[in-house]
Amino acid sequence: MTPVTDQATGESAGAAFQPLPPTATIGILGGGQLGRMLALAAARLGFDACILTPEEQAPASRVAASCLVAAYDDPVALAEFAARCRVATFEFENVPARVVDRLRAAGVRMAPGPLALATAQDRIAEKTFFRAVGVDCAPFAEIAAAAHIPEALARLGAPALLKTRREGYDGKGQSWVRAPGDADAAFAAIGAAPAILEGRVDFVRELSVIAARGWSGEIAAYPLAENTHENGVLRRSVAPARVSDATAAQALDIASRLLVGLDYVGVMGVELFEMADGRLLVNEIAPRVHNTGHWTLDACQVDQFEQHIRAIAGWPLGPTRPFARAEMTNLLGDEADAWAVYAADPQARLWLYGKAEATPGRKMGHVNRLTGALPE
Amino acid sequence: MTPVTDQATGESAGAAFQPLPPTATIGILGGGQLGRMLALAAARLGFDACILTPEEQAPASRVAASCLVAAYDDPVALAEFAARCRVATFEFENVPARVVDRLRAAGVRMAPGPLALATAQDRIAEKTFFRAVGVDCAPFAEIAAAAHIPEALARLGAPALLKTRREGYDGKGQSWVRAPGDADAAFAAIGAAPAILEGRVDFVRELSVIAARGWSGEIAAYPLAENTHENGVLRRSVAPARVSDATAAQALDIASRLLVGLDYVGVMGVELFEMADGRLLVNEIAPRVHNTGHWTLDACQVDQFEQHIRAIAGWPLGPTRPFARAEMTNLLGDEADAWAVYAADPQARLWLYGKAEATPGRKMGHVNRLTGALPE
Repeated sequence: MTPVTDQATGESAGAAFQPLPPTATIGILGGGQLGRMLALAAARLGFDACILTPEEQAPASRVAASCLVAAYDDPVALAEFAARCRVATFEFENVPARVVDRLRAAGVRMAPGPLALATAQDRIAEKTFFRAVGVDCAPFAEIAAAAHIPEALARLGAPALLKTRREGYDGKGQSWVRAPGDADAAFAAIGAAPAILEGRVDFVRELSVIAARGWSGEIAAYPLAENTHENGVLRRSVAPARVSDATAAQALDIASRLLVGLDYVGVMGVELFEMADGRLLVNEIAPRVHNTGHWTLDACQVDQFEQHIRAIAGWPLGPTRPFARAEMTNLLGDEADAWAVYAADPQARLWLYGKAEATPGRKMGHVNRLTGALPE
Repeated sequence: MTPVTDQATGESAGAAFQPLPPTATIGILGGGQLGRMLALAAARLGFDACILTPEEQAPASRVAASCLVAAYDDPVALAEFAARCRVATFEFENVPARVVDRLRAAGVRMAPGPLALATAQDRIAEKTFFRAVGVDCAPFAEIAAAAHIPEALARLGAPALLKTRREGYDGKGQSWVRAPGDADAAFAAIGAAPAILEGRVDFVRELSVIAARGWSGEIAAYPLAENTHENGVLRRSVAPARVSDATAAQALDIASRLLVGLDYVGVMGVELFEMADGRLLVNEIAPRVHNTGHWTLDACQVDQFEQHIRAIAGWPLGPTRPFARAEMTNLLGDEADAWAVYAADPQARLWLYGKAEATPGRKMGHVNRLTGALPE
């Protein structure tokens, strides 16, 4: 797949782009914790953030210079957003494509761009893209109806994981298929929506790489993180993961293929499966800052949030070498009620997202621990 | 001087104080860069910040959950501020005392408290306090009229520095007196306001210590910084300053006397003169986070801004040990126009304050450089 250049606007990595000057406004679609930490990073560099979110009093809005509370496709809000922001980004991958199109038509430079968004929004498009750029992933089959499942299962082997093509996250919209007879129940469980069936991957570890690409085409990646999920939700990341140089090089090669293939600008999260033979398969990509990169907030001079702001603003990417080993633990639901314990622990670096309601499993904050120095 | 306890409200370090829970609102009087970085630190811990400032679009307001634009003594604004904030602080020491009194009367817990504010607002009160707690400072004389200057000069020795008692900062409101005949001109130069004449101190270096005290009485101090001023404005801080253990211990003793003597809660900046014989004199105190502590933003796990938020919120103080040596350089006026140079320098950690207007000498941002590892 060749890097895509938007002929209409000339928007492409490699295209000339004057760096966005401080005091300019950066738009962020979405008001959650990722938007919040992006807004904080933008502020550090002297930028104003403008948040567009349907949520009143969203975590990101409470640290931003301005906020528009409206549906993402509200035309009046989008026009105002476009009037304020020369550059905009998003903190979640389910932004409707028509919203991005409308903003670009209004002259807003969107980063990442529409191709990255479209690819990440559809698991079939995503895996097709992986193959096109020579990146390995689990075997898969497109499932439009329950009746497609038995044949696909026979080809992929049982058990296999049925996922909605679109809009699943944190383990939602997924169901295991162990036998052909499970087809109807599994398809119903995911809402009888267009789906993908993925062959089970017998991985050794879950890793991820957080990488960035600038408008100039410059690429920088943080060291890999090793991740533990519980019930489909990230529990813990340890970084840098202890991996061989070959594995690190393989991950960087994968990230580079993905970034270049999507003509990507910004930070991308790439979830990887490490196989027993050392091969890395891509699980999925997130076209945004990523939970498995939160460790960079306390272990790197330039964290993933500042890196994303730098990339989309046309600034040079920052250094990615950590100064310490780190362990990041998510605080889910009422786990954040123990904030006083973390506050009293001199080893714990606490981040809270300002969410009032601690519903079960909701990401309320995280704790970073520095676990040792890295050799110079 | 005995620590002062406010009998009316029981407000005192050592008094029982339930830690402020995340999502609560912390009030900040003042909208400049110190308020901005306090608001960012508050956000990290899940707090909302509410800024009260007469300035539209102030640097701090642009990163805060809410803002009240009004004169500091506007009764309607103060009532609203008090309704929103259980705890409040200030980012500059010239907050009118009546404002703090009114907020306390409305049930807001102010930290630092009125005694610290009153002491820091009046150079005579400040130096009288230094003597009361056994802390050395330059010899001084109270000057109510130009006619007082010759006699004071004879006692203190020439040259001596005439300063307004109140409201001077960054070298403003100061004039050197070299001979008795300078008296009228010097007094006129500082606005013919109530003044203090300070004997010249032949110091070897300018140092500072950033220290914090919690409601519980707990004290924590960062290592000393060595500071360079130009035209009365801080240019550069290098930290940790290379000082003997005895000097470090002396500085901690001074900071502790000041914090305890003022029954202080929050971060205090203490400017010190190091004499040839190793003795430290206090130049002045700032009852707030301090420019000479900006290096902590990139060289410490808990920086001075988070430390201040922790202290005033009744949270345990964080660790103060840096993980690297650092050098902080202020970007004054149009120096910040070189932001692209700093952005491209992997050793430079840039902070910009979001100020649109770069008037000469205005603090627009700063750059931290990590200059080496510290031994474990």
